[in-house]
Amino acid sequence: MLVAGTTETARRDGLSAAGADPDLLSTTPAADAELLAYGRPVRTDTVPVSPSGCPTPALVTRAVRELLGFDLAVVDGGLAEPTGAPTVSVGAGVGRDIGEQDPVPTAYGAFEAARQYGRALPTNELWLAESIPGGTTTALGVLRALGEDAMVSSSLPQNPVERKEQAVSDGLAASSLAAGDAAGEPKRAVRRMGDPVLATLAGLATGALETDTAVTLAGGTQQLAVAALLRHGGYEGRLGLATTSYVVADGSADLRPSARGLDLDLTVTDPGFDATDHVGMERFVAGEAKEGVGMGGALALADRAGIPMGDVRDRFAAVYDDLLGDHTVDTSAPPSGGESR
Amino acid sequence: MLVAGTTETARRDGLSAAGADPDLLSTTPAADAELLAYGRPVRTDTVPVSPSGCPTPALVTRAVRELLGFDLAVVDGGLAEPTGAPTVSVGAGVGRDIGEQDPVPTAYGAFEAARQYGRALPTNELWLAESIPGGTTTALGVLRALGEDAMVSSSLPQNPVERKEQAVSDGLAASSLAAGDAAGEPKRAVRRMGDPVLATLAGLATGALETDTAVTLAGGTQQLAVAALLRHGGYEGRLGLATTSYVVADGSADLRPSARGLDLDLTVTDPGFDATDHVGMERFVAGEAKEGVGMGGALALADRAGIPMGDVRDRFAAVYDDLLGDHTVDTSAPPSGGESR
Repeated sequence: MLVAGTTETARRDGLSAAGADPDLLSTTPAADAELLAYGRPVRTDTVPVSPSGCPTPALVTRAVRELLGFDLAVVDGGLAEPTGAPTVSVGAGVGRDIGEQDPVPTAYGAFEAARQYGRALPTNELWLAESIPGGTTTALGVLRALGEDAMVSSSLPQNPVERKEQAVSDGLAASSLAAGDAAGEPKRAVRRMGDPVLATLAGLATGALETDTAVTLAGGTQQLAVAALLRHGGYEGRLGLATTSYVVADGSADLRPSARGLDLDLTVTDPGFDATDHVGMERFVAGEAKEGVGMGGALALADRAGIPMGDVRDRFAAVYDDLLGDHTVDTSAPPSGGESR
Repeated sequence: MLVAGTTETARRDGLSAAGADPDLLSTTPAADAELLAYGRPVRTDTVPVSPSGCPTPALVTRAVRELLGFDLAVVDGGLAEPTGAPTVSVGAGVGRDIGEQDPVPTAYGAFEAARQYGRALPTNELWLAESIPGGTTTALGVLRALGEDAMVSSSLPQNPVERKEQAVSDGLAASSLAAGDAAGEPKRAVRRMGDPVLATLAGLATGALETDTAVTLAGGTQQLAVAALLRHGGYEGRLGLATTSYVVADGSADLRPSARGLDLDLTVTDPGFDATDHVGMERFVAGEAKEGVGMGGALALADRAGIPMGDVRDRFAAVYDDLLGDHTVDTSAPPSGGESR
């Protein structure tokens, strides 16, 4: 299940690599949903590519979906543009900048509607994914509001930690909160310092866990924030986190100890992209993107099903080549804008 | 692809068997979408059952989907209640009673958005289904506005032809139209005399056909009205209509000659429900429901894939028993309300 949405926090300079330019920030989650659902853009007309040529991790998740055929549902976690992917509504609106006093006014309603939906879903296991540019900054905001000292990762090769800390400081001040003031109050934390995707994910997981559905949070440090929301909501049972080797390798974030601190069952999967010289994989190897749109969870599902990572790489290359052709990367050139067709 | 929506025309007395009571008329399409997507109600908490105990044909389509695993997308064709099924939006609003002057103000916009979506869909073939209580009456309205003299079928054992003709007369008068005045003007016909599901279906089919996707209209006489809209829009190519033996056996409607008149490739499939004494099948054999939610199309897909109808019946019985238990039918009792769990 993919929760796709937006936060205007992403408009701050230098926070996100999702989307090749600021105009694409609101398109990226809508496009990611279409790529997972159909294998190509339908309404958005865009395959999100970073300025240096890193494709959206949605293409990795899609490649695994083509191999495994797992069911997909997309939940609208505050989309700013219509998507052609079928979506479930939980009433989440666009998230505003966390420097505003009440950036996620729909958080409580979305949490509760998502919880009811998560309770009713007839499934034994639920893998939760996200797509929200700027989402690691709002994840940091939630962690700080809860009093958790974990650091978040980044879709950029160099994590703009200071910019994120500044955004979070702005947010805490605007909400008249000190770090830790929302400990034990997850809905308050996500409303004041988070984004609508985090609120929706936390609601879905809460509802699913209430009916004994096994939940795996598929992603990196944004899902760590969801886990923190669940723990601060009083859930003490089993909870999985499935991410990529790229997030774990990010020394600026320290995912492993943070996951241990929240008592998560951590699964880390390496797609072995360094084994090839495919242009669509080399940006991941260089530390871009790292995770997103359920990439780490999809890799874990493939691994569990016994699908060799070589097959995943071959399918990813096929998906990439079909959508983006032989998109040559020239990192010396200025940002080229999103590849579209 | 299921288009689910509503028309307030269904509130007129005695027009529809969809839903056990008037309150369920707006719930039925939302519930049908959930049944196809998940195999059980998620938000609606309802399995639509007619007053005499006939289950929604969505259970037949779902049974085939469980056997075949075909892809599903649901399009919101003017739902009045939220559904837990993921939906694509094309801007269709609830349809008003055709006795009003402008019952489907969203028809043009929904047609065009659906057409764009249909053009962009990456698929070689598209099977279109509907769920809209009261939809045969609005289908009759469209046929008359276009000047087609076909009669529509009914989900009731006795087709309330006079009530339908009366509703259509009211509608034509309210729109200052005589029969045939909208010949060659499909969008005008569906806006003045139709419903948002017909507008959306016509748009989806138009867009798909423009990009050489093979289209099969899965349903009975409502899909006949969609075919008429396409023919009046100038499409002269191949077009399939896949329905059940129950619609073809309805002497009040004459589907075969009408399909021939519109040059449709007609596929009729008999699920053989008379071969069993299962309570969920006997109401179909008695002439209730007949079709809907893509039942005839699903049966045709099963047949094409070489799945014996005995397997379809077994799976339908399992789906029914799981959802409705051994719901005994007592037609002497007053309407019992929808079976819910």
